[in-house]
Amino acid sequence: MNKVILFNHWPEGLPVATDFKFIEEEIPVPKEGEILLKTLYVSVDPYLRGRMKDVKSYIAPFKLGEPISSALITQVTKSSNDKFKEGDFFLGYLDWKEYQISTGAGLTRVDPDAASLSSYLGILGATGLTAYMGLKEIGLPKPGETVVVSGAAGAVGIAVGQIAKIMGCRVIGLAGSDEKVETLKSRFKYDEGINYKTTKDLTAAIKALCPEGVNIYFDNVGGEVSDAVLANLTYKSRIIVCGAIALYNDVEPALAPRVEWRLVVNSATMSGFLLSDFSDQIPAGIQQLTTWFKEGKIIQSETIVKGFDQIPSAFTGLFTGQNHGKMVVEI
Amino acid sequence: MNKVILFNHWPEGLPVATDFKFIEEEIPVPKEGEILLKTLYVSVDPYLRGRMKDVKSYIAPFKLGEPISSALITQVTKSSNDKFKEGDFFLGYLDWKEYQISTGAGLTRVDPDAASLSSYLGILGATGLTAYMGLKEIGLPKPGETVVVSGAAGAVGIAVGQIAKIMGCRVIGLAGSDEKVETLKSRFKYDEGINYKTTKDLTAAIKALCPEGVNIYFDNVGGEVSDAVLANLTYKSRIIVCGAIALYNDVEPALAPRVEWRLVVNSATMSGFLLSDFSDQIPAGIQQLTTWFKEGKIIQSETIVKGFDQIPSAFTGLFTGQNHGKMVVEI
Repeated sequence: MNKVILFNHWPEGLPVATDFKFIEEEIPVPKEGEILLKTLYVSVDPYLRGRMKDVKSYIAPFKLGEPISSALITQVTKSSNDKFKEGDFFLGYLDWKEYQISTGAGLTRVDPDAASLSSYLGILGATGLTAYMGLKEIGLPKPGETVVVSGAAGAVGIAVGQIAKIMGCRVIGLAGSDEKVETLKSRFKYDEGINYKTTKDLTAAIKALCPEGVNIYFDNVGGEVSDAVLANLTYKSRIIVCGAIALYNDVEPALAPRVEWRLVVNSATMSGFLLSDFSDQIPAGIQQLTTWFKEGKIIQSETIVKGFDQIPSAFTGLFTGQNHGKMVVEI
Repeated sequence: MNKVILFNHWPEGLPVATDFKFIEEEIPVPKEGEILLKTLYVSVDPYLRGRMKDVKSYIAPFKLGEPISSALITQVTKSSNDKFKEGDFFLGYLDWKEYQISTGAGLTRVDPDAASLSSYLGILGATGLTAYMGLKEIGLPKPGETVVVSGAAGAVGIAVGQIAKIMGCRVIGLAGSDEKVETLKSRFKYDEGINYKTTKDLTAAIKALCPEGVNIYFDNVGGEVSDAVLANLTYKSRIIVCGAIALYNDVEPALAPRVEWRLVVNSATMSGFLLSDFSDQIPAGIQQLTTWFKEGKIIQSETIVKGFDQIPSAFTGLFTGQNHGKMVVEI
């Protein structure tokens, strides 16, 4: 039988088990022109929470009673399409199913010899590209500038730090445990790190590490830690709003000190973005990331959870900080 | 005798009479190389409130016990400097004094035959330039786009609307009375206006006028009205934070719904700026504004208050909406 996860209920706050529904169905058989894909790795990402709200956003909400979907690494197990050979590996935005039929549309071939398969969901996939495009195109980093990253130990945060170092910047990461802070410095080239959970005066702690102010703030979180960073901006600083994980589960919009004055006194810019804004630059971005990866200049960090049944809990674990780097479910 | 206004006390909230101190001194006599300037017009501007706070900002705070300063139109009444003829008119950032000595440094000659003297404090001065540079350089307007302006009946707002129309945009103004809204449409080329004080559901009112969303939001206010505009942004919209008059008098930073999510889902940008960011473009900007002014494409709007003693109350009147357009004190 073939396990499938349906979207069962609009979550209120943090998603719970009953917001998801497991069903079983027959494993389908590909018709002429189709292939059968077996799911090997499932990407769980904060942005999926945004699709679990019945409001206008950049992609349509999930539909109740239909499968949830995200980026998957799959292998062709049966093929009735000459272009897709059995045994080959493909990345696609596909349903949370153990097996599914595809015509091949929208699939990207991945090479298991160039990097681990799960890397294509992380540092060589949307995660790495998001870090690279946001930092390069919105952050406009110059050598010697100071970059502060929130959610630094998350999938995007780890990539941002390493790429910012390649670009000649000084990088300071905010993370939620001493262990994460230590890992940022020892493994991921961060110059400094701050445990925002145990630091009493975060504004002062950032000021101490950034006496000349913050040039670039790469914000993966969108929560209270941002207020402390914004109090340390410098002239013509750039704030890259990559995600708002701290806000995804809010039922009412969270309140925060108004940012307008901070932006005016620093002639600063705060920009949201989506990877799709830079779609024409994605092939070049993948090439750059792959080069750095092969040269050992950027390394991957993953939390791999095993088992199809664990997909929902791996997803909700993103919001309680249970991951180091990219959270991936291995089937 | 020569009247002078000193900065007497850090205001708490809205400035009051005792935050200012009037003194009288002898009218000074220019030495060799100096000139005596008589003040004709005093510009009162919201940004001055920012200099009345003892915190880091883009210009130094005023000093207690010293004169307050702003943009003034002056006339040379005595000259011991060959470059400055008695009777000539100059714009400068000078003290709130009836008469003062200058070496001529930092003064800009103004031509009383080309436009009214007070115009050089408004549409042909910092006000017009702020509107023009912010809209052009940060707003990046394209013909057919929809521009929403807060504080639309203020000095900058009136200029923004007229310039946005020249650039082919559709312009909607938010103002605080039906009379102001009517004037925006009848005199200042605004396509539509909304009285934000009497409109119950401002978000819905903006949506009704901007069914395809807001491309550019020129924010002169920084207060609650912004939340309603931000709820109507469209893809790749630009928010120009020009001032934060609604916040200048706050003792504690005001709270507002976080903007991060709005920016992410719209790939939108929110930028603060100061006119000085574009200092190399100011001469060309003045030339453009003067051309449009002579062609009758932009018109001036002023509230002129008379009398040196009225400077403080004209200034505080900015925060209670007592001005239409540029507030100027005629001495």
